[in-house]
Amino acid sequence: MELYSKVKYGELLNIYGSLLTEKQLRRMEEYFLFDLSLTEIAENNNSSRQAVYDALQKTICVLDDFENKLKLLEKQKELNDFAKSLDISSEQKAKLLEIINR
Amino acid sequence: MELYSKVKYGELLNIYGSLLTEKQLRRMEEYFLFDLSLTEIAENNNSSRQAVYDALQKTICVLDDFENKLKLLEKQKELNDFAKSLDISSEQKAKLLEIINR
Repeated sequence: MELYSKVKYGELLNIYGSLLTEKQLRRMEEYFLFDLSLTEIAENNNSSRQAVYDALQKTICVLDDFENKLKLLEKQKELNDFAKSLDISSEQKAKLLEIINR
Repeated sequence: MELYSKVKYGELLNIYGSLLTEKQLRRMEEYFLFDLSLTEIAENNNSSRQAVYDALQKTICVLDDFENKLKLLEKQKELNDFAKSLDISSEQKAKLLEIINR
């Protein structure tokens, strides 16, 4: 799992998490957000390290598929960068960024 | 199908269409974007009016489910309204709206 960026999949999880099953979401959060190891997740769920690894790999593909189709993370980053460059009041900027990142 | 807003489902289709199957997408476009009747769609696809109706109803539920979970249409509308209210150059506004509605 070292090849995958924890930051990237944490971000994709924040965006597309509601489209996953409860179990998929929990496993992904444990690994990508709460930084548990595969062995720890397996022990917490009466599962094997390999089963957890396989489940995470599948869900990573699901998240990549959502992003390939909807490109919400790409769009969110572009909107953030553009919003930050605008010459508007700090209140307006905060409101704009809040909606973008909701 | 009269109960459903063609505008609303046209918008949801633009946002979530890439998550539908090719067949689901085609039926929905024929009805909600190209304004064909159920009978016309059935004739074009060697199907029955009832089968087309049932297929559209199912896909409407799928789109509603995506919007309930991701709320992208709601967010897009809010961003559009807020972007239009900003006191920025017309070039910047056009660019911001382009990213929002991409």
